[in-house]
Amino acid sequence: MAENKIKPRILTGFMELLPADQILFNKIYDTIRGVYESFGFLPLDTPVIELSQVLLAKAGGETEKQIYRFNKGDNDLALRFDLTVPLARYVAQHSGELTFPFKRYQMSKVYRGERPQKGRFREFYQCDIDIIGNEELSLVYDGEIPAVIYNIFRKLDFGKFTIRINNRKVLNGFFEALDLSDNITDILRVIDKIDKIGSENVISELERLNIDSSKIQRIMDFITISGTNNEKLEALRNIPMDNEKFAQGVAELEKVTEYMRDFGIEEDYFEIDLTIARGLDYYTGTVYETVLDDYRDLGSVCSGGRYDNLTEYYTNAKLPGIGISIGLTRLFSQLKEAGIIRAESSSLVKALVIPMGADMEYTLKAAGNIRNAGIPVDVYYAQKGMKAKMKYADKLGIPFVAIIGEDEVNNNTVALKNMTTGEQKVVNIDDIAEEIKTQMRKGSN
Amino acid sequence: MAENKIKPRILTGFMELLPADQILFNKIYDTIRGVYESFGFLPLDTPVIELSQVLLAKAGGETEKQIYRFNKGDNDLALRFDLTVPLARYVAQHSGELTFPFKRYQMSKVYRGERPQKGRFREFYQCDIDIIGNEELSLVYDGEIPAVIYNIFRKLDFGKFTIRINNRKVLNGFFEALDLSDNITDILRVIDKIDKIGSENVISELERLNIDSSKIQRIMDFITISGTNNEKLEALRNIPMDNEKFAQGVAELEKVTEYMRDFGIEEDYFEIDLTIARGLDYYTGTVYETVLDDYRDLGSVCSGGRYDNLTEYYTNAKLPGIGISIGLTRLFSQLKEAGIIRAESSSLVKALVIPMGADMEYTLKAAGNIRNAGIPVDVYYAQKGMKAKMKYADKLGIPFVAIIGEDEVNNNTVALKNMTTGEQKVVNIDDIAEEIKTQMRKGSN
Repeated sequence: MAENKIKPRILTGFMELLPADQILFNKIYDTIRGVYESFGFLPLDTPVIELSQVLLAKAGGETEKQIYRFNKGDNDLALRFDLTVPLARYVAQHSGELTFPFKRYQMSKVYRGERPQKGRFREFYQCDIDIIGNEELSLVYDGEIPAVIYNIFRKLDFGKFTIRINNRKVLNGFFEALDLSDNITDILRVIDKIDKIGSENVISELERLNIDSSKIQRIMDFITISGTNNEKLEALRNIPMDNEKFAQGVAELEKVTEYMRDFGIEEDYFEIDLTIARGLDYYTGTVYETVLDDYRDLGSVCSGGRYDNLTEYYTNAKLPGIGISIGLTRLFSQLKEAGIIRAESSSLVKALVIPMGADMEYTLKAAGNIRNAGIPVDVYYAQKGMKAKMKYADKLGIPFVAIIGEDEVNNNTVALKNMTTGEQKVVNIDDIAEEIKTQMRKGSN
Repeated sequence: MAENKIKPRILTGFMELLPADQILFNKIYDTIRGVYESFGFLPLDTPVIELSQVLLAKAGGETEKQIYRFNKGDNDLALRFDLTVPLARYVAQHSGELTFPFKRYQMSKVYRGERPQKGRFREFYQCDIDIIGNEELSLVYDGEIPAVIYNIFRKLDFGKFTIRINNRKVLNGFFEALDLSDNITDILRVIDKIDKIGSENVISELERLNIDSSKIQRIMDFITISGTNNEKLEALRNIPMDNEKFAQGVAELEKVTEYMRDFGIEEDYFEIDLTIARGLDYYTGTVYETVLDDYRDLGSVCSGGRYDNLTEYYTNAKLPGIGISIGLTRLFSQLKEAGIIRAESSSLVKALVIPMGADMEYTLKAAGNIRNAGIPVDVYYAQKGMKAKMKYADKLGIPFVAIIGEDEVNNNTVALKNMTTGEQKVVNIDDIAEEIKTQMRKGSN
């Protein structure tokens, strides 16, 4: 047979988990999915492989270098590097069959062949929601997107977090008024870094862009406006600025914060932050970032914003949208490392049936009774000693064990052991599920 | 801007669904996953891209030709073409960290760049379960695997189905006794086709393999043994055959059918079928196929079996296993085309809140009340007429609509319309969720 064994291994930059961590990962994944669905987002599952010509319609620079691209037959193919481009392609392709506003979620793997480094992955999950309008899209959605995020992070319970919002019209209008429109991309990129590099360095970098010191002063005054959300809005309204776009942005920002409150987002969970620009060129209105208050150095765990036209590379239709993305693989890896989350169990079952003898019919009947009541259950069939069997249940973190010996078979019972409390109780074979449910309600398992 | 639009399209051989079908697909996916988990299978999520050297350790022939293989940097990479090889690699790599028997499920996309043809996909979901033992693996699992499949297909409700089982030891022993071991692979391949090509053609093909007509007669007598499961077992026991392997296979088959009954599989849902061999070389014991009785031409919708050694290309450890796979993409596509399943709704929400005026605070409070009670809900924000709004709900198949006009805001109510019955009822804003739940329990929505 095969004498030369091949070393089993995966590529660097790819995350693969052991069962306990995979269970934890899926729990987070399912929570996000559940909230997305509770707001009416529809599932989408686009191919991993697309035609390069279609996928790279918009790309360029860094992205194009990172892409996994190859030929198969006559086709020039590429693996998707995000979920936004496939969404644009999908909406353009199927616009006649979709109902607008089209709310979709997609939680899938994407691929970027970048040099592997700490916290960066070449294959990672993005959990995206987007809402696409036909010609127009209500501003209420600018409040709904952070409401979805708020519900997710409250449920996930990673501690206090803050959703930071801003509006690109406020920024763009402000720089237009200062006659700095030509430099706006560079300035925004510098401003965006204020959290990382501090005010002093922002000023030096702005000087390097040859901006008048008086204008730099105005920029710094602007981006360091402080106070409560309402105080910041008040300050913005009071800036003497004869610019239509700026005024519109401030009005939008004010309206969006109102909507966010209407959606039930508690005031100290969101914050107007005028430094947020989200590097990407295509955001045109509200923009978001989200930070975990106790772990700010993780950076934004969830970002997005509003854009004017999703599908411009594919159609002439005007389809404005708004969306946000959670980079789940990276987030999971960071949260694990920071000790914010940890695996609790290596099993999904709540009960393990352990036959001491060989009466498989009775054993499987007991297991069937538990499973049919909606409780995940497994049976330990291997011919091992009692100690090994209990150790197995304990190792996997299974909360209940149903032991079946000769007495139990004769009396139509099982010996049900609660692995958390250590308590053991003889229960009729038809009542095991009910007893487990009762004990689960009482206890913590 | 971009003047030359790129035609939005995907590659042939890739399945991409509209929302209503995606909802239906996910419902099936979630049902399968739920049953897998209820039997204690653990989730696994291996990378789509692996090192070619690792992934192709075992491959050859057709598989290797179909593979998506490419270079990135210095790496020779390939997309997984099934979930079994990644499982073998994973188990070999992590054997020290896993608890055996290791039960895992993986429901992921795999890639085969074959020529696209009807019902064949280049990207498709496989929904696999496998149970891997360390050195040994109880025969009870040979009964558990079909029990899982039984529970899934009962839940999915695609109509009556039959799980066909056989044992490779019975086949191998039988042909050994006839002194046909050298031809066994060819003979099994011919036998495997009896359903498709009929007895006559099987005989001709066996003749072409230069097999004595007396032996062909014994083969045909053997593979056409008929009757109930017990009658078939009886007939097998009565075949005069001095072969250890054959005897062991018959004993296993008998034991496995007992276990299947113990697991609660009803007798007419499974059938011993001595023609099943499952082409693959590596099955060594029990083998399975599953057919939908009313749609036999779909072929086997779920196949698998027992193998002696999962990881031989990677380690010297002896890790026997048993597994089965549902090719979900193909199955879904076939079921849709045959009209066995059809999409029921283009929405996941159970209620749509429709504000007639502009009181967003009240509207969002109503929606929040519904959502917080666990009912997925959406709000229709667009400034359209009442008719357009109701049409939207109807088109998406949303069962309840909560209309909010000036009266409702003043009286702290909503007008709740049941879209199935047409009934409308004024309900207090705090009681909407309860009222929807009551009506859902009563009705069919």
